[in-house]
Amino acid sequence: MTTMNTQVLLASRPTGEPIPENFDIVQSPIPEAGEGEIVVRTIYLSIDPYMRGRMDDAKSYAASVQIGDVMTGGVVGQVVQSRNPKFSEGDFVLGMFGWQSFSVSDGSLVRKLDPAVAPISTAVGVLGMPGLTAYVGLLDIGEPKPGDTVVVAAASGAVGSVVGQIAKIKGCRVVGIAGPADKCAYVMEELGFDACVSHRSETLKTDLEKACPDGIDVYFENVGGKVFAAVLPLMNDFGRIPVCGLIANYNLTELPPGPDMSARVMRNILTKRLKIQGFIVTDRYDRFPAFEKEVGGWIRDGSLKYREDIIEGLENAPAALIGVLAGRNFGKMLVRVSDDPSRP
Amino acid sequence: MTTMNTQVLLASRPTGEPIPENFDIVQSPIPEAGEGEIVVRTIYLSIDPYMRGRMDDAKSYAASVQIGDVMTGGVVGQVVQSRNPKFSEGDFVLGMFGWQSFSVSDGSLVRKLDPAVAPISTAVGVLGMPGLTAYVGLLDIGEPKPGDTVVVAAASGAVGSVVGQIAKIKGCRVVGIAGPADKCAYVMEELGFDACVSHRSETLKTDLEKACPDGIDVYFENVGGKVFAAVLPLMNDFGRIPVCGLIANYNLTELPPGPDMSARVMRNILTKRLKIQGFIVTDRYDRFPAFEKEVGGWIRDGSLKYREDIIEGLENAPAALIGVLAGRNFGKMLVRVSDDPSRP
Repeated sequence: MTTMNTQVLLASRPTGEPIPENFDIVQSPIPEAGEGEIVVRTIYLSIDPYMRGRMDDAKSYAASVQIGDVMTGGVVGQVVQSRNPKFSEGDFVLGMFGWQSFSVSDGSLVRKLDPAVAPISTAVGVLGMPGLTAYVGLLDIGEPKPGDTVVVAAASGAVGSVVGQIAKIKGCRVVGIAGPADKCAYVMEELGFDACVSHRSETLKTDLEKACPDGIDVYFENVGGKVFAAVLPLMNDFGRIPVCGLIANYNLTELPPGPDMSARVMRNILTKRLKIQGFIVTDRYDRFPAFEKEVGGWIRDGSLKYREDIIEGLENAPAALIGVLAGRNFGKMLVRVSDDPSRP
Repeated sequence: MTTMNTQVLLASRPTGEPIPENFDIVQSPIPEAGEGEIVVRTIYLSIDPYMRGRMDDAKSYAASVQIGDVMTGGVVGQVVQSRNPKFSEGDFVLGMFGWQSFSVSDGSLVRKLDPAVAPISTAVGVLGMPGLTAYVGLLDIGEPKPGDTVVVAAASGAVGSVVGQIAKIKGCRVVGIAGPADKCAYVMEELGFDACVSHRSETLKTDLEKACPDGIDVYFENVGGKVFAAVLPLMNDFGRIPVCGLIANYNLTELPPGPDMSARVMRNILTKRLKIQGFIVTDRYDRFPAFEKEVGGWIRDGSLKYREDIIEGLENAPAALIGVLAGRNFGKMLVRVSDDPSRP
């Protein structure tokens, strides 16, 4: 049993893609719970694209991580010490405890998890923030109707895989966009998407056109860049584009060269009466109970599947984030920081 | 009394700004009503920015005018011959009769106008398509709340002037964007806007920033280009941008040079959770009864004002459209093609 707390700090702000040197891995004593506090041992650290934005100084929807601070992140862990009457030692919990092997918390915004309901790792995946992102973005902004064509980028990822499967449940034709052939095969064969095209293909635009013979009614945007450019001309009148991420842009150091495509974007919005709407899942927690009930049910009855990409060891978290931003993960990316006693 | 029908035809498609040579003015016999038809004498021809789009061959939300065809347009006129039981000679009517001094119609999509309710010219202005555009765009997409800051471009125009006045009625702070000082003075002094800045100013961005100390909650987009670029950084979280026109782009012959601002647009949509939604008034006629009742009431009680910019003679219609696209009109642009017997 370790006696030290491993922490991953932001060492410097990246220019473009993050590099390992942007992170510092340090050891410190395991914290002690003060009155009203708990100490949590990290089991799973969630790795998500939004973390790239936290490494910048730029104004965004959430505060930046400061140089020298522990990287921000969602954690599934176990209470190892409690001086808070709401928690007992051994409880499994979810919280924003960051990239560290132990953390101390006053218990606010910490949620207890029941391993009998679902594997605890799903609390940062299909039954957590990525799943809720998919749910509210697709249903509340995308408003899919039976027969609609729904296109989702990063199709095998934590968000995209849920978007596509919910759209199938709602009676839509679903077309994924992914990188390598194995991810395309997975979303079609395992998740039941109707088609999948590769954003690495030289013929992305025509591939997408063939996969969407009736145009596109809903495009779930979490990528940006050339995928958005390929989708836009295929959007149907009254199409909806929920925007939950722009992973292709996160590492941009300056605006791309011209021409200025914004005039074309606006023209498409006008002539096709498109709705493009950004959203952040943290504004939408009011939808959590409905989400948990509905998606939890689909998981239990097998109509919604998920895939996890788990690496071992907190020291590998920087590489995991760099990989997620490059699309190298296959499924929801997790770092297993310590043993999961809830798994057989 | 004339015995000939003057018609303005599309002679050629413009490249960039329309020029007088894109139009042909021809004379033909006044049409005769067949069984079930009416002949209408044009009194007012409406001149609107959307007409520029109809001159192009490009796919848009409505069919192009073909070379040699009469230019499309809304008309307020008077029935001079009727073989349709629903209409009598002397009735004032509204219809899409085009740029001609007489037209024949089977009466479908023709609406009778009562000069006792409002001046008949308002049927193509504040109580017609421009007014309804303002009403549905602001209320249904913009969703203004009391205390919101609403910015409207082309503020003294047929649409913008109504947007701003309705926003004032709804308790918003209203900032107009217009060209010359006399238009700014008009929207502030006559229409009650809280502020107005000129898009011709070298300091548009800082002028707008000063006029919107609490940021912008709703931007009613009918211009595009540099005005949109100045507005975007000032948009507040959860801001709404109804898009009903992009007059600054209509004469573009190619995409503007770089950098590619679309990455910045998408980033703003995401991080500020903006909603940008295009709409076309012809999809929204279901809202006409509510609009007519509410806006009609505001006009009758004096809480909503309008201004018309009327030129005489159908032969001046091409110059009127060219002027509207350059922002040279001051108020709703109309061509008076023949006498209005309803006006004293």
